[in-house]
Amino acid sequence: MEWILHNDQFIQEEDLKISMEDRGYQFGDGIYEVIRVYEGNLFTAEEHIDRFYESAEKIKIVIPYTKDVFHKLMYDLVEKNEIDNGIVYVQMTRGCAPRVHQFPADCPPVIVANTKSMERPVEAMRSGVQTKFVEDVRWLRCDIKSLNLLGNVLAKQEAYEEGLFEAILHRGETVTEGSSSNMYGIKNGVLYTHPATNLILNGITRRVILELCKEQGIEVQETAFTKSEALEMDEFFMSSTTSEVMPIIAIDGHKIGSGVPGELTKKLQKAFEEKLKLTGNVNV
Amino acid sequence: MEWILHNDQFIQEEDLKISMEDRGYQFGDGIYEVIRVYEGNLFTAEEHIDRFYESAEKIKIVIPYTKDVFHKLMYDLVEKNEIDNGIVYVQMTRGCAPRVHQFPADCPPVIVANTKSMERPVEAMRSGVQTKFVEDVRWLRCDIKSLNLLGNVLAKQEAYEEGLFEAILHRGETVTEGSSSNMYGIKNGVLYTHPATNLILNGITRRVILELCKEQGIEVQETAFTKSEALEMDEFFMSSTTSEVMPIIAIDGHKIGSGVPGELTKKLQKAFEEKLKLTGNVNV
Repeated sequence: MEWILHNDQFIQEEDLKISMEDRGYQFGDGIYEVIRVYEGNLFTAEEHIDRFYESAEKIKIVIPYTKDVFHKLMYDLVEKNEIDNGIVYVQMTRGCAPRVHQFPADCPPVIVANTKSMERPVEAMRSGVQTKFVEDVRWLRCDIKSLNLLGNVLAKQEAYEEGLFEAILHRGETVTEGSSSNMYGIKNGVLYTHPATNLILNGITRRVILELCKEQGIEVQETAFTKSEALEMDEFFMSSTTSEVMPIIAIDGHKIGSGVPGELTKKLQKAFEEKLKLTGNVNV
Repeated sequence: MEWILHNDQFIQEEDLKISMEDRGYQFGDGIYEVIRVYEGNLFTAEEHIDRFYESAEKIKIVIPYTKDVFHKLMYDLVEKNEIDNGIVYVQMTRGCAPRVHQFPADCPPVIVANTKSMERPVEAMRSGVQTKFVEDVRWLRCDIKSLNLLGNVLAKQEAYEEGLFEAILHRGETVTEGSSSNMYGIKNGVLYTHPATNLILNGITRRVILELCKEQGIEVQETAFTKSEALEMDEFFMSSTTSEVMPIIAIDGHKIGSGVPGELTKKLQKAFEEKLKLTGNVNV
């Protein structure tokens, strides 16, 4: 018996009724977050919730709950579904109204959330993954975690059809991010990643990693790099809520470095894991 | 009692159950069309249906019906709801599956359609409407009539908040189209409009208008123009399924021409109306 959250009520999925005139369904007019659960604890929940409220503000939806109430709803859902390791997915749309582009008046937003059990991708994190370049055709507000994800979907599918783990997006020659991840290259001990502009989503895991670099004495340059610079990096990795620090060992069939996870990448993986232990999130 | 279409079944809206894991709801992973109904007839239905199938193909969704069956479903819906003047709205998503970006296997698409009564906007067509420029931040596949419409929504809202009818989108200095319309300027008797590239949706009404220009001996240049060129046009208008040929008399408070609907614009409105009469669609 799995519970889902509908606004502030816990219900069974068969009792949920999304309208065809929900603006999420007709316009993608909404936002979302995915929060990682380790050992029953929501990891970096406050950061995800802060970003959820920021995304809402950017598209002018008012969340009808305080952050504390919202946090408790997420926590209670995880507890009710007895999720040990997994994720909470939560989204909010502008609500239901007869279809017109402009915002409808007096339209309460619709929040839904569910959970999924999921183990850490330890095998892939050890061996590293392969990727390909795909043109970044998305809109110019990638800083908003919105439900307009068709560009991301089509890019990810292109990678999957070739048996690859992720698509590395590029606008012209410039690498931006992954279809559902941030991207990092390491050259001569310096970590490079696209700055947190309107062209990428500033991942919560990205922020954790930049913090860990500081602690580990790894120099960070938030500077965009090109596709050819990417191929010349000593190490390459991606990050996301579910893939943590994920080594990339090839792009378009070209080996990165010696084709195995790099030393600084492994150091960051270890530091990330230590952080989980320190915050009581995993027993390794 | 209003019917809606769900796949190939006519049901009542309260019996429709859209899942929170419908990919339309979580990714905007789907497409749509709006077809105009005049005097009970679907106007340019074949063209809309052709484009629906083209959009589906571009995002790799297979429509499970022939075009003839699909056309009949649209027609039957209009008839069941006794729509005299109005629209049919139809959308199709990739279907329902646990949330991952890549396409799920064995996932039947979900089609829904409804109707709405709507009169022709005769008053606005006579007096013309006011507009403003808004930066075009949408993705680079605007040729697909997809459900990723948040950029369009935010632009339209910006116009509505200032009491204006439409937002004229521009990428840098170049005018592309409206938030839910195509844009045209007329200078020295020549009609200019953005070419049908990936940056605009090639409207069905746009195609009708370019055909009418040919019949009326109006020279057409499918050439993009800039914001400053737009302000210097003799005449300006927009088109869409619901607003037909809609004169624009001001942009950002600047009068276009003498600030009233232009002569060639009115000639095209008349030609459009004649076409409706000839195809038996309106009794004027």
